[in-house]
Amino acid sequence: MIKGFPLVRNVSKLPQGSFGIPGLSHTTLAGSVLHGMKEVEVWLQTLAPGARTRVHRHSCEEAFLVLKGSGTLYLTTNMHPEFPGNPHEFRSFSNSTFLVPIDDVHQVWNTNEQEDLQILVIISRPPVKVFTYDDWFMPHTVAKLLFPIFWVAVCYQTPLERNEL
Amino acid sequence: MIKGFPLVRNVSKLPQGSFGIPGLSHTTLAGSVLHGMKEVEVWLQTLAPGARTRVHRHSCEEAFLVLKGSGTLYLTTNMHPEFPGNPHEFRSFSNSTFLVPIDDVHQVWNTNEQEDLQILVIISRPPVKVFTYDDWFMPHTVAKLLFPIFWVAVCYQTPLERNEL
Repeated sequence: MIKGFPLVRNVSKLPQGSFGIPGLSHTTLAGSVLHGMKEVEVWLQTLAPGARTRVHRHSCEEAFLVLKGSGTLYLTTNMHPEFPGNPHEFRSFSNSTFLVPIDDVHQVWNTNEQEDLQILVIISRPPVKVFTYDDWFMPHTVAKLLFPIFWVAVCYQTPLERNEL
Repeated sequence: MIKGFPLVRNVSKLPQGSFGIPGLSHTTLAGSVLHGMKEVEVWLQTLAPGARTRVHRHSCEEAFLVLKGSGTLYLTTNMHPEFPGNPHEFRSFSNSTFLVPIDDVHQVWNTNEQEDLQILVIISRPPVKVFTYDDWFMPHTVAKLLFPIFWVAVCYQTPLERNEL
């Protein structure tokens, strides 16, 4: 009736997964493939102490809100034309936001050894196309395309429930 | 250095206002005019018991995450061509999301008499152009354009701080 998807969802009943990434717990709160979003996507992620994302970039906007814990955002501003180069380090903390400019290479790392880092992640232009780097000196030309991203890929591998169509 | 705006912000130090709306506290966590966002915008809002938004619609996507409290989302799916008509009622609760389809007329109301409703609001295509209705039976043709919205309008009325330019 409401364009085929439920409007209200209980976050604690949404599927949660690590998708093979050590220390990650990911939940898609509002997703393109899962929920029909076309312009924004919202994720809830928890990174255990020491857990981190890959070094990566994407041609979309990204905003984070730190709900719990603290960590470090590493980011380069694409000043170097061939590879990301040494990133800037930004400390983030509970009840802080951080904004990632479009195409800037970045990495989120739970550098707090004591507690989980829980973040809300908001991106534009879903589903996201991610380019990953093995390190900060890998040339842009050989960055690897990761598409669909793990938690979207899984949607294509398992039958969709009828009420998610 | 980083495209002219700080990347990490302490939410508790961001400006907060009611913008003349009884019972509202609004903070722009990631904004187009304030912070240079181009594709998504993120707001933190608290509605006191009984407080509500206007009946309104906008040509952008919107996702809410209820952080505290509970309330009611009223929404019509534009089934009637001339006016919104009687809305559906959706109960929302702490740790739930709700998604508002593009152009659907809706209203958020803190119908819980005991506690504040705290929500995170995510919209696409900022700055938002809102069309407001006096009630659910006001014709679409006379809905009033509210642009810029209160918390964006104020940015144009007060000098920007140098570090926000």
